[in-house]
Amino acid sequence: MARRTGRRPGNQDTREAILAAARAAFAEHGYDGASIRAIATGAGVDPALVYHYFGTKDELFLTTVQAPIDPAEMIPALIAAGSVDTLGERLAETFLSVWEHPVSGPAFEALLRRAFANRISARLVREFFAVQVIRRAMRHLSQVVDPAEVPLRANLVASQLFGLAVTRYVLRFEPLASTPRTTVVAAVAPNLQRYLTGRLAAP
Amino acid sequence: MARRTGRRPGNQDTREAILAAARAAFAEHGYDGASIRAIATGAGVDPALVYHYFGTKDELFLTTVQAPIDPAEMIPALIAAGSVDTLGERLAETFLSVWEHPVSGPAFEALLRRAFANRISARLVREFFAVQVIRRAMRHLSQVVDPAEVPLRANLVASQLFGLAVTRYVLRFEPLASTPRTTVVAAVAPNLQRYLTGRLAAP
Repeated sequence: MARRTGRRPGNQDTREAILAAARAAFAEHGYDGASIRAIATGAGVDPALVYHYFGTKDELFLTTVQAPIDPAEMIPALIAAGSVDTLGERLAETFLSVWEHPVSGPAFEALLRRAFANRISARLVREFFAVQVIRRAMRHLSQVVDPAEVPLRANLVASQLFGLAVTRYVLRFEPLASTPRTTVVAAVAPNLQRYLTGRLAAP
Repeated sequence: MARRTGRRPGNQDTREAILAAARAAFAEHGYDGASIRAIATGAGVDPALVYHYFGTKDELFLTTVQAPIDPAEMIPALIAAGSVDTLGERLAETFLSVWEHPVSGPAFEALLRRAFANRISARLVREFFAVQVIRRAMRHLSQVVDPAEVPLRANLVASQLFGLAVTRYVLRFEPLASTPRTTVVAAVAPNLQRYLTGRLAAP
């Protein structure tokens, strides 16, 4: 990629202006609908400067959402680490580890709090989940279950994991908040597994 | 109950002063530790005035939390309506109905938003759940499962239901947000049932 010099290059203000324009564009038009060209125009800079600061559109989106994890790395790693029949357990273990990590935990909590407080942030999180998580889940689960069911399955998994985060880490319900992680993983994993590969509706 | 005249009787300010004192007392000392006498002192009124305005300590607590439902009515009704083996389904159906109701839905969402934004509100919700929900669940589930497990089971049920509220109603993840309620109930009910009466740990 050619690194052209745009307006106010190297300036922290430029980076912030790009982020603000990207935030607005992703929230309003979605990931697919927001072009780097339009974001650059919104920020008053050359498109090359957007690439210079943020690499790819995916990376810009991750930065905009302030996501504590990168699903592009995490999802393939989770899938590759074992059988799809034990994916629920790996998912629970990984999710709780991220929340209990001293850096990614607070980042995750801040993300959730922003999404609660602010409609734009809520839209960004929704779009992030739809693009970064569901599309990747489609790729990996469509061989195992009916592809038409994958988006709802991913949402149901999110409902359990987000709810676990809210009750264990944000509201700190007891005894859940002080239950050892292994016990929580054992309790939650079969439910996640059912959402991932089990039968969703009554026969 | 004798209706004695306290300071500033009949005044809206008095009611608000009692509520503020109750909020502070319940958040700091918990439901059991907060006495009506101490709340009255905090509000600068006679204890009889607290009973006059709010009836019982339970009712005062419900008002303080601004709870959209009264677990004292809802939990026994849910239990009485059928077999404990189908309690998960009734619970899912009732919870989603409350959220989709034009009055209790927004009240529930406001409660969750307050709990996210404010530590005192979070403590009140935690205490509300511990006292109003877990204690009643203990009474009804202790014949069916190990009583020592009931508090964690109730927390796990809450984790799924709160997560459903967050993803379906607050963040509005798709396709979950636009999936018909009956489909969501069918998908979620077996997971709630496992938390209620199933085996929690791997054998």
